Amino acid sequence: MSDSSSPFTLLARSSQCAARRGELRTAHGTVQTPVFMPVGTQATVKGVTPENLRDLGAEIILSNTYHLYVRPGHELIKKLGGLHRFMNWPGPILTDSGGFQLFSLRQLAKISEDGAAFKSHIDGSALFLSPESAMEVQEALGADIMMCLDSCIPYPAAYHEAEAATALSGRWAARCQTTRDRAARYGNGQLLFGIIQGGMYPDLRRRSLETLLGIGFDGYALGGLSVGEPEELMDEICEFTAAKVPQNSARYLMGVGTPRNLVAAVYRGIDMFDCVMPTRNARNGMLFTSAGRLAIRNARYYDDPRPLDEACACYTCRNYSRSYLRHLYQAREILAAQLMTIHNLSYYTGLMAQMRQAIEEDRFLDFYRDFDKVDSC
Amino acid sequence: MSDSSSPFTLLARSSQCAARRGELRTAHGTVQTPVFMPVGTQATVKGVTPENLRDLGAEIILSNTYHLYVRPGHELIKKLGGLHRFMNWPGPILTDSGGFQLFSLRQLAKISEDGAAFKSHIDGSALFLSPESAMEVQEALGADIMMCLDSCIPYPAAYHEAEAATALSGRWAARCQTTRDRAARYGNGQLLFGIIQGGMYPDLRRRSLETLLGIGFDGYALGGLSVGEPEELMDEICEFTAAKVPQNSARYLMGVGTPRNLVAAVYRGIDMFDCVMPTRNARNGMLFTSAGRLAIRNARYYDDPRPLDEACACYTCRNYSRSYLRHLYQAREILAAQLMTIHNLSYYTGLMAQMRQAIEEDRFLDFYRDFDKVDSC
Repeated sequence: MSDSSSPFTLLARSSQCAARRGELRTAHGTVQTPVFMPVGTQATVKGVTPENLRDLGAEIILSNTYHLYVRPGHELIKKLGGLHRFMNWPGPILTDSGGFQLFSLRQLAKISEDGAAFKSHIDGSALFLSPESAMEVQEALGADIMMCLDSCIPYPAAYHEAEAATALSGRWAARCQTTRDRAARYGNGQLLFGIIQGGMYPDLRRRSLETLLGIGFDGYALGGLSVGEPEELMDEICEFTAAKVPQNSARYLMGVGTPRNLVAAVYRGIDMFDCVMPTRNARNGMLFTSAGRLAIRNARYYDDPRPLDEACACYTCRNYSRSYLRHLYQAREILAAQLMTIHNLSYYTGLMAQMRQAIEEDRFLDFYRDFDKVDSC
Repeated sequence: MSDSSSPFTLLARSSQCAARRGELRTAHGTVQTPVFMPVGTQATVKGVTPENLRDLGAEIILSNTYHLYVRPGHELIKKLGGLHRFMNWPGPILTDSGGFQLFSLRQLAKISEDGAAFKSHIDGSALFLSPESAMEVQEALGADIMMCLDSCIPYPAAYHEAEAATALSGRWAARCQTTRDRAARYGNGQLLFGIIQGGMYPDLRRRSLETLLGIGFDGYALGGLSVGEPEELMDEICEFTAAKVPQNSARYLMGVGTPRNLVAAVYRGIDMFDCVMPTRNARNGMLFTSAGRLAIRNARYYDDPRPLDEACACYTCRNYSRSYLRHLYQAREILAAQLMTIHNLSYYTGLMAQMRQAIEEDRFLDFYRDFDKVDSC
């Protein structure tokens, strides 16, 4: 990709740290960064409608190549008009490549130079995902942003293992780009991001990025973080790696994280995030608030008439008390998941909006320093 | 109650059958009848928000005295501002008395002249519900329409058992009205309906109604139907009983039923219904459509791009295919329950609206005759 064709535009930079404000153009709209992408694993963000997502300020969502490939199948979704139409979400969609799911299911997967042979977690049937088929699946889904198939590395991993997996990811990335170049002739407008691997070894991270830059992608993701390593190590690798990605490219930290992780990563120059935490925690009754985390099952909320977060203007906080939400949660009502998911995602999108504003006003360093003091999330 | 104080106004009657069109005034708004009330057992209609309910045309909902008494407790709900505020539903609410739940749990309940002693289905604690406390609970909840505590009769039941239970229900109804008369001095605007019992014995039904009319209520419900008897017998008892309720009173057939049951009961002069069927069936993937019932798990819907019902304009049918809904259902996604509940309730509210219009235009008999031909629900 030449610089002029980059879908990412840098709008502002902090004068005191690496934080940056930008926008990313996709076939289904422009996304303001830094951005958090709610996770819609199986073509739905669990517990909310597309209108809920729009209303709570989500601009882009993530869905999972692996899961949709296994069920209901990408050919079906293509036949039904693509993922946007299938799930009724008109905005941008990023699909991960399936690499992380293969890593999670590695007991069931066999990795070779060609790709990954694995058994469906649904019915045990034999399946195969290669760099080429990962592209085919994501093209069929119609993702605005596709991700290269990568080979993830556990933590901890020996150097030679990390080196081999990183090199394999590099060769797979080249095959993804070749496959995509063929498809792009049809002008489908899909972007393709490379994934920087290298585990916790800075020189492997550097080598991985150099390989990817040599191929050329529309954006660069940091993969293989938040896999069990200490937070300080994650921050270190993130800082080291992000700084080496060209300023005119979007940087996406995959699968991260807590609100604190997000603030720490924006500080280090990250533009994009996804994580199941806000949605999964919501279903488990763990809420993010400006006063810290709140476990709704706690008896103290039995008769608490206040909203989850008095500083929050989301649908849930405007209309429902902690007492009612606790009742719904205790009674295992579906509405508990719906309302608490809306709140947690609103917290995340609100946090990103605050960070974008702080960068625009060049006071992000203060925001970063204050965050720990006022917010224990 | 004098006639002039009746909250029910008869607007139109079929010239060919007992079907009638009316409206019922409550403290939280006027309801157009015949009406179907979605069931919000635990202070939520499972899977939908109050806004969903409003958008799909629900004018009044039902909630359960027994369940809310057991959890989270009526005193809590009163403290939080009453049931409307607690659950964020600004429209009318009818609360049943708990009589039917005690009947369902009769292995755990001991009925005496005083009331019913039972064990909580949540934690086994000993609880007691009397006609007086059933009123206190419903007053605390702030229900627009309260129901008398009644003693339900199983099917089949011997005459002497049905007679004893019906007589007890009559004595309890008098105690409910006495309790309510005391409370009504405070001008809370809550209506109270009596429940006609008598099992499958017409003379007991007549006697029960006479007792209730002697006490005087704001409306009259038919209880103890749809408890396992043949449909023809239910229709017979319904027709016999409804015809004896004064024309200027609302008639409510409790816990019924299928779309066909509703049409048959409107034909016999019933004004109000509630049933868990549309919501429960939705969660189980059973959908009501103008072309009959549809089981979404059926493999034939795997790649079906059509909405659930091409004649339906609900949110679900405007935006989602059968294929997507089947995927959500197979993947056990929360959104499956949300979207299919919206559709099934829309089918029910739409059916009631069609019946109201048919009565207004005095062509209900045709509607009734055609329903079986075009709709197998």
